[in-house]
Amino acid sequence: MKPTYKFPRLDRRAMLSALTLLPALPMLLPVSATGQIAAGDSLPSWNDTATKKAVVSFVERVTKQGSPDFVPQAERIATFDNDGTLWAEQPMYFQLLFALYRVKVLAPQHPEWANEEPFGSLLKGDVKGALAGGEPAIAKIVMVTHTGMTDAEFEQIVSDWIATAKHPVTGRLYTEMVYQPMLELVAYLRANSFNNFIVSGGGIEFMRPWTDKVYGIPPEKVVGSSVKTKFEIRDGKAVLLRMPELNFIDDGPGKPVGINAHIGRRPIAAFGNSDGDMQMLQYTTGGAGARFGLLVHHTDAEREWAYDRKSSVGKLDKALDAAPGAGWTVVDMKNDWKTIFSGVK
Amino acid sequence: MKPTYKFPRLDRRAMLSALTLLPALPMLLPVSATGQIAAGDSLPSWNDTATKKAVVSFVERVTKQGSPDFVPQAERIATFDNDGTLWAEQPMYFQLLFALYRVKVLAPQHPEWANEEPFGSLLKGDVKGALAGGEPAIAKIVMVTHTGMTDAEFEQIVSDWIATAKHPVTGRLYTEMVYQPMLELVAYLRANSFNNFIVSGGGIEFMRPWTDKVYGIPPEKVVGSSVKTKFEIRDGKAVLLRMPELNFIDDGPGKPVGINAHIGRRPIAAFGNSDGDMQMLQYTTGGAGARFGLLVHHTDAEREWAYDRKSSVGKLDKALDAAPGAGWTVVDMKNDWKTIFSGVK
Repeated sequence: MKPTYKFPRLDRRAMLSALTLLPALPMLLPVSATGQIAAGDSLPSWNDTATKKAVVSFVERVTKQGSPDFVPQAERIATFDNDGTLWAEQPMYFQLLFALYRVKVLAPQHPEWANEEPFGSLLKGDVKGALAGGEPAIAKIVMVTHTGMTDAEFEQIVSDWIATAKHPVTGRLYTEMVYQPMLELVAYLRANSFNNFIVSGGGIEFMRPWTDKVYGIPPEKVVGSSVKTKFEIRDGKAVLLRMPELNFIDDGPGKPVGINAHIGRRPIAAFGNSDGDMQMLQYTTGGAGARFGLLVHHTDAEREWAYDRKSSVGKLDKALDAAPGAGWTVVDMKNDWKTIFSGVK
Repeated sequence: MKPTYKFPRLDRRAMLSALTLLPALPMLLPVSATGQIAAGDSLPSWNDTATKKAVVSFVERVTKQGSPDFVPQAERIATFDNDGTLWAEQPMYFQLLFALYRVKVLAPQHPEWANEEPFGSLLKGDVKGALAGGEPAIAKIVMVTHTGMTDAEFEQIVSDWIATAKHPVTGRLYTEMVYQPMLELVAYLRANSFNNFIVSGGGIEFMRPWTDKVYGIPPEKVVGSSVKTKFEIRDGKAVLLRMPELNFIDDGPGKPVGINAHIGRRPIAAFGNSDGDMQMLQYTTGGAGARFGLLVHHTDAEREWAYDRKSSVGKLDKALDAAPGAGWTVVDMKNDWKTIFSGVK
């Protein structure tokens, strides 16, 4: 059995006190290593609780030939939120940490930023001050770091960052902060001929460079928030430019819209962790036949973070209230999961 | 060998003279039966010309282990335009014929249409007069027939129409007006582990109800033009409403944008027939490594239609000029294809 990883709690608290002012921003986001499944039990990191039984029971019912709940393979669509569902999201969305890093990298080309908020504060190391500007400040940071280059250039930037950047609290690669039980679940569904998609509020092009390696979910099965892109012939080459204009926010009521746009079928199973996933779960479990909705509840302050109704990141309030009536399964991380992170050796 | 199907030429001319005033509208579109592949030759409806050889040579080069042009399976993305590439598009885009039909069905609920253009002319049988209003008139027709219902309701409307509606010139089901050689090509690529997508100017939700049955391309691999949708809880049920607002035009420079949004990888092969496909071919063949671009040139006035530079539907002018320099293969339908339509028994 893997050892339990403990967070350095003081560091975490210091980070949180500096950063919890962050507004819940629906366009930021993040991964791990493909889960190896032990023979005989596809979900070895799940305790044998009612939660695990609910998952297994659903999968068995929809995959068993002759079952009244049987669903043909082509219709076994499962959608997964990313931040807080497949990987962690504290002390802030990892995509925002990426954006802050990129501001520092780009600063030498922008001497004017010294006197321009939120960049001035950020470059002085005052993250709290920089983010005190709320969503407009964050939008500014995201746009200067996420647009103005080709899609191929942005892919390279993300790939370089994800390969080396370390989480400010744990000091580990972001791809080592993926939840091992969820990796097992993704693999278990795939083994049962489910078609797995990510449906995240995070940037679609921020996820695609690494989701196949980490989750086994390829670029064409990633749905997310996006900026507009523009086709151009540049120096004789056909390229797509990333424009500083929002295209789509894949969060809240946007998730069913994104699902329909990209997949064109109503999922039969959906996995989330916050109020931003509520409409995805309503849309999924509102269809006819057997359906499954699941919320990951962050209850483990020792091994991860404990937060829900009052968190500025991954707020879980209305969806938690709705869960019992809607028949959604709620994961109690502390009691349902043996292991939390995939990257813990 | 299948008998050659001959069009009733006078009927066709009559239709064309009434309808060629149609502006090239980038949001209208359409299918067949899954091609059965003869053993020993995956492309039996293709004559043994340089065109067929170019297709086969490309596929062999990218699929052969150890070949300098080898492409891993996951990256074998192929994109197909629909109108004029996979099925016919004369005398007008089939989706527009669907819209005109729906106006008639809906008319009893709209007595005011009698005095409102373009509906008044349309209901009097004056299609030419109705469409003389150009794009605004067509947009009006499309919006009243394509929006205001849930996505599930629209899917049912399209499914009912495609199962029974007949083409005004040939009198055949629209799904029998798919090109047999292209069905074979789609199946041939699939057999070689290509991941086939439709990338069409037509409506994404107009295509999805039938593309799997006809081309073997499921809903999640269909990219097209779209209207905005909105998530709602209606009578306690989670639904998506189709709104009378354009969301995306998947045509011309929009095709690379749509490809990137939905697939997230640059295709290695792209198939089109008009100037609206030019940027898709530029984007596809502009990537590194072995690439393939193909244009279907409608040259067969006896068995189908002959049109290119001056056609209001499926205009092929700039892309035809660009083909030799870009290394794109051009299908001469008359000489390269033994059979045209899949539905001819």
